[in-house]
Amino acid sequence: MKIARLMHDGKETYGLIIDGNVATKDSIIHETGVPLPLSIIDFLFDGWYDEIKDKISSTSFQDKFEKFRLLHPLPNPSKIICLTFNYPKHAEEQNYVSTKEPVIFIKPRTTLCGTGSEIRCPNFVKQLDYEIELAVIIGKTCKNIDEIASKDYIFGYMIFNDVSARDIQMQDKQFTRGKSFDTFAPCGPWITSAEEITDVDNLQLTTRINGQVRQNSSTKNMFINIPSIVSKLSQVMTLEKGDIIATGTPEGVALNNPDTPFLKDGDEIEMEIEKLGKIQNTVKFIG
Amino acid sequence: MKIARLMHDGKETYGLIIDGNVATKDSIIHETGVPLPLSIIDFLFDGWYDEIKDKISSTSFQDKFEKFRLLHPLPNPSKIICLTFNYPKHAEEQNYVSTKEPVIFIKPRTTLCGTGSEIRCPNFVKQLDYEIELAVIIGKTCKNIDEIASKDYIFGYMIFNDVSARDIQMQDKQFTRGKSFDTFAPCGPWITSAEEITDVDNLQLTTRINGQVRQNSSTKNMFINIPSIVSKLSQVMTLEKGDIIATGTPEGVALNNPDTPFLKDGDEIEMEIEKLGKIQNTVKFIG
Repeated sequence: MKIARLMHDGKETYGLIIDGNVATKDSIIHETGVPLPLSIIDFLFDGWYDEIKDKISSTSFQDKFEKFRLLHPLPNPSKIICLTFNYPKHAEEQNYVSTKEPVIFIKPRTTLCGTGSEIRCPNFVKQLDYEIELAVIIGKTCKNIDEIASKDYIFGYMIFNDVSARDIQMQDKQFTRGKSFDTFAPCGPWITSAEEITDVDNLQLTTRINGQVRQNSSTKNMFINIPSIVSKLSQVMTLEKGDIIATGTPEGVALNNPDTPFLKDGDEIEMEIEKLGKIQNTVKFIG
Repeated sequence: MKIARLMHDGKETYGLIIDGNVATKDSIIHETGVPLPLSIIDFLFDGWYDEIKDKISSTSFQDKFEKFRLLHPLPNPSKIICLTFNYPKHAEEQNYVSTKEPVIFIKPRTTLCGTGSEIRCPNFVKQLDYEIELAVIIGKTCKNIDEIASKDYIFGYMIFNDVSARDIQMQDKQFTRGKSFDTFAPCGPWITSAEEITDVDNLQLTTRINGQVRQNSSTKNMFINIPSIVSKLSQVMTLEKGDIIATGTPEGVALNNPDTPFLKDGDEIEMEIEKLGKIQNTVKFIG
């Protein structure tokens, strides 16, 4: 299933999406009689999604997709954990080597925005870059789990753009500040549930800037695979429902590639991951 | 005022502390008639604290402090931002140089624990270290504020121990993973409101391990001062009420100091900041 957080007529809701049609919370309540909660977080992770997913039929999907604006799916995650250099060719283009243990940083939740939003970058940033990533959404709290168990704790996946101010990132050496500006984590367009994706280790990822392909790889090129990422992170910290884990970006970013310029005002970024949809964002430099 | 999150008889509450006596939420409600909220976050940041602080008298403080266990004051902050190398002598002992712009990392909220708690460290960590820091608590949402305005957005201060697995921190180069283990952010013992601290830039900080002084400095030795830290971070990200900003540690940590060993099982850590109280934690290595 594809689960989206939606805006219509100034009101926030959520719903399921199939073939360009939407079953909103209210229409699912109407059809199933199940009293769904207001919050998409409660819906996803407190059993409501599981309760309704086999009860709804095509008649629920009565709303046209075009009526809605898509919001970033998870409003207030506890953590947004990002892996560095998890695709060896990207590590190589940045003069790094991928490592068996996940090297991470954390982005604040104030970076999140949805598809269709502007990436609003202060003018003092001189090297603005993009990174397509497959993000894992944790569905249940877990600690110290092994790779086999990890699939029980993954709710689903979405596209994630780890927008980066390279000049600040490289000056600081610690990556966090240059990646923590408001709107520097466009994601979505919706959450695709894990049960729908049987080949998460073989999905194509593509970034286009103003229509030109810049990143074009597959999740099969990850150095640490998803079960191992979730297991290893859970040896460090309790993973909580709604946590977002961005699993690293493949080669093709602007930094260190003379043929690919940094982002400039007005650039259109389209990121697509097979089976997960597309997100589109415009770059806006601000005073 | 000193505001604490408290546990008594298996129930969580909050209250104010003066001279070893506690005015709990319920006793403040009883005395003032103000219907205080359940959550300490709402109490602190949604106007309730301001409403009652001048109304309570000594008769509210009828409960003995010893009855309560202190919890870490803020249960679910949006961000825990930590500065690196903000005391030049600590930067020097680690072969770094302090910089004018704040170099940061973010700890997940799952690191938080209160005074009296165990720091529970997996056995695979080989170099466990401590860092006393003064933490700033943001009281109101802000973005792009200048240094002078910053004081209007600071609610208060507390002690913060940025516990660090140095072997992982140094192996990763990115500091986040080695500082993100559960219980690696003891803090408290309570929040001291900013109006009570007129000299936040001149407070003594002391760390004792098993009674032996290891860190002993003053907040006057910070390289970037607190108004500048808050202003500069707000140029990057929206700061939200309840956000915690740990302002860096002075010299005297175990790493790179041959006379000061890393932490071992059973070590008692006491951290004290003038006017903010003390936190005490025990190190426990786990299987």
